[in-house]
Amino acid sequence: MTDESCSPALTPAEWRARFRRGANIRPTAGLAPGFVQANLVVLPRALAFDFLLFAQRNPKSCPLLEVIEDGSIEPKAMAPGADLRTDLPRYRVYRDGVLAEERADLVALWTADLVSFLIGCSFTFESALIEAGIPVRHIEQCTNVPMYITTLPTVPAGVFHGPTVVSMRPVPADKVIRAVQVTSRFPAVHGAPIHIGDPATIGIRDLARPDLGDPVDIGAGEVPVFWACGVTPQAVAMASKPILMLTHAPGHMFITDRRDAEFAVL
Amino acid sequence: MTDESCSPALTPAEWRARFRRGANIRPTAGLAPGFVQANLVVLPRALAFDFLLFAQRNPKSCPLLEVIEDGSIEPKAMAPGADLRTDLPRYRVYRDGVLAEERADLVALWTADLVSFLIGCSFTFESALIEAGIPVRHIEQCTNVPMYITTLPTVPAGVFHGPTVVSMRPVPADKVIRAVQVTSRFPAVHGAPIHIGDPATIGIRDLARPDLGDPVDIGAGEVPVFWACGVTPQAVAMASKPILMLTHAPGHMFITDRRDAEFAVL
Repeated sequence: MTDESCSPALTPAEWRARFRRGANIRPTAGLAPGFVQANLVVLPRALAFDFLLFAQRNPKSCPLLEVIEDGSIEPKAMAPGADLRTDLPRYRVYRDGVLAEERADLVALWTADLVSFLIGCSFTFESALIEAGIPVRHIEQCTNVPMYITTLPTVPAGVFHGPTVVSMRPVPADKVIRAVQVTSRFPAVHGAPIHIGDPATIGIRDLARPDLGDPVDIGAGEVPVFWACGVTPQAVAMASKPILMLTHAPGHMFITDRRDAEFAVL
Repeated sequence: MTDESCSPALTPAEWRARFRRGANIRPTAGLAPGFVQANLVVLPRALAFDFLLFAQRNPKSCPLLEVIEDGSIEPKAMAPGADLRTDLPRYRVYRDGVLAEERADLVALWTADLVSFLIGCSFTFESALIEAGIPVRHIEQCTNVPMYITTLPTVPAGVFHGPTVVSMRPVPADKVIRAVQVTSRFPAVHGAPIHIGDPATIGIRDLARPDLGDPVDIGAGEVPVFWACGVTPQAVAMASKPILMLTHAPGHMFITDRRDAEFAVL
């Protein structure tokens, strides 16, 4: 991990070009700081209306940054000139809701009826939290953020339904309000928390045993704060067992040309 | 108009029930103050993905409050129990992009493949402007807001494309910044202005001759401020000449059960 902790200062386009030619395959956390990174979900056109409607109804867990219609591989708003089939470091292929393989690119699998969804990622608001003097424990501990499947239902749309997945960050009690304010400014990347405090209220039994990611230490005087998580739409899509779903591999996000600050409101 | 200027204090559900039985047919401005009113666009399922994508790409001109899938006539989030076919005071029917008729209800025209879109309306932010001490001229003058077709393109999606339509409100120069702040709090109803000042910058030749609505007086020391307008999605949908499009009649909006304040951010 020592190489990876020291990243060259490349632009988003330079990182995408490296990934395109198969170089520097690695998780994207910390790369191109200040630029928005995105989750990728690709589905056949027949499921696209339902998934777009699901996103419209669940904007906190599924904040859409851009939808790329069938027939196109270029995210014109988020990264003009990029190729969604090649410009992420690593991809996953799900068939009938089951992980079939991980791949370096999607060129051989791409068909003209695929619709691509770029979904906001919490990296953006985590930078804002740190800048506001609020510690982000899993970054301090160099682990993946702890994620939990809650009893909060998403609003269903067509074939898509399922529980909300949350990520948790422990926040010092005297900084909880500031954390709400800071993340409220970023509705395009999950926005304000959806719960503060007692995990049992949203159906979480044991913070030390997350459903995904790694547990983190919670210090005395710290309050667990829960944000809707970008894993929700993937989990929900997977549960509907689409014939084909293509995604980024966990942590291997799409690095866009848009700056975090462009997505702040007020 | 004297009767209409004195409205009984009915709840949204009571107004909808009156409209359902054909009573009190009238424009909805000023009715059920404090509750969100919505534009209605109904399209066949075959066009629904493109229109939903258009809305996702143009959130300021086409802020979606709710999408009601084919097979349903109930806006469960905005007004549980309501019937979109009967609960607006007046409707319009467009065939191949041409106004075919106005009707009191849509019952006879409804088919199982229709998808309904409820779109935010500026009534919500106008109340907030007035509460903030910012005059709203067309309300003072009891006319319709002036609207202009600009040279600002919308972001196209599938069959839908066209120019952005804006509404204009003259604001005293020392209140322009406050007007930006106040309306920024309501992204679900067009949000912040999209232009301040010189109309020519966005392709408007003569403020005294709006493309839709009525001209208003602009006083000395007042600056024209332009917001994306809910007429945009209707105009864009109409331009694509869908085989069938059902809408509310101008000014005859859907009165929801949700409060304006619920849609304020920060």
